[in-house]
Amino acid sequence: MLSKNQQKNICQLSHKKHRQESGLFVAEGEKLVYDLLNSGWKADQIYSTEPIQQTPYTLISFSEMKKISHLSSASPILGVFYLPYYNSIEKTHKEFSLVLDNISDPGNLGTIIRLCDWFGIKNIFCSSNSVDCFNPKVVQSTMGSIARVRCHYVDLHTLIDDCDTKVFAATLDGSSHYRESFPSEGLLVMGSESHGISEALLEKIDHRITIPSFSRRGGAESLNVASATAILLSEIFRS
Amino acid sequence: MLSKNQQKNICQLSHKKHRQESGLFVAEGEKLVYDLLNSGWKADQIYSTEPIQQTPYTLISFSEMKKISHLSSASPILGVFYLPYYNSIEKTHKEFSLVLDNISDPGNLGTIIRLCDWFGIKNIFCSSNSVDCFNPKVVQSTMGSIARVRCHYVDLHTLIDDCDTKVFAATLDGSSHYRESFPSEGLLVMGSESHGISEALLEKIDHRITIPSFSRRGGAESLNVASATAILLSEIFRS
Repeated sequence: MLSKNQQKNICQLSHKKHRQESGLFVAEGEKLVYDLLNSGWKADQIYSTEPIQQTPYTLISFSEMKKISHLSSASPILGVFYLPYYNSIEKTHKEFSLVLDNISDPGNLGTIIRLCDWFGIKNIFCSSNSVDCFNPKVVQSTMGSIARVRCHYVDLHTLIDDCDTKVFAATLDGSSHYRESFPSEGLLVMGSESHGISEALLEKIDHRITIPSFSRRGGAESLNVASATAILLSEIFRS
Repeated sequence: MLSKNQQKNICQLSHKKHRQESGLFVAEGEKLVYDLLNSGWKADQIYSTEPIQQTPYTLISFSEMKKISHLSSASPILGVFYLPYYNSIEKTHKEFSLVLDNISDPGNLGTIIRLCDWFGIKNIFCSSNSVDCFNPKVVQSTMGSIARVRCHYVDLHTLIDDCDTKVFAATLDGSSHYRESFPSEGLLVMGSESHGISEALLEKIDHRITIPSFSRRGGAESLNVASATAILLSEIFRS
């Protein structure tokens, strides 16, 4: 049984402001909820329309679930989890990390987090104007990978200034990614869907790389940012 | 000025049945509409909220545009175009084509069409249960690439049986894509988001390839189909 107040509080977690005030976020679906629990994330509440092993949990009706779900088709399980608190960034040597400048589409960020999980990247550094990784649409499209990849919202200028590894920027005017040899440690910067990497940030980066197009004249002007990230990560982790 | 009847007809084009009955589909936004016109696609009607060079067109108000738009934020221009009629598949030698088995997400198909445009792939063969490429969400997410890439809805079993080039299947149990050497002519088969390539089709394919995961134990179980397609196309077109 859900109170009106509980229902309201869960629905409000679709807004960043309410997530920050309450320190909570929502994850839906069996895989996602269990991926978080199995990775040690702490749940405030688990709601299920069916009896489950996990305790404690609250059994609710499917019509109640539909009222709190952020999905177009509600799933049988929804978890309200505590936002993580990363008190310091794990500094791991011999590691590649991803930097995202002003990514605004939740589906793109979710797909990129899933890609990082696949390639074993543990940390993503996002500009503070990027979409929040605990936005329900982002969480959902990570397919559970949000449990294993940390997104840090930081000042990218400071990050690049303080970086003592090689920094690569994905642009449309760089050298071919096929010809680049990537070190085992470094940063890859990807820019926003509509404007690419901001000019001021790009000025700080020496190595520009491009995925060459094989299209006829008048073809696609650019690739989707998640597609471009996929291609470049595959190249970086070439063994 | 839009009549009630015109408005109804345009809105109905979000359904495949109505697109097939009328032979029309909708494209919105300046880039997409002009990409189609510049590639020789024939428009039945162009609607614009501002005076444009293109003739003939119908000037409508923004509130009228909002009523016919399939987008959450309507753009100033919407075109109703004739569906293309491909009377035969262009048989081009020395070419790689993509095969999609039961792709259901419009955003994924749109992203894949955009990828094909980038890599110069002209033809995609889709199983008949795949999402329709003239679905407004697919058209929109191709960012204009729908003008240059042809989707053919065919029986994939017949296609593979009749194929005299090498056929590759993206699976989770194949050989590493890093170690494969791809010929300049062939087919790459990608499977559905939830079930992969259907068993019966997979049995017909000799070459299974996989993108190796570098994740820790318990990491992402799979990649998004558009991300996997991006990585494999980049590898196939390695020069």
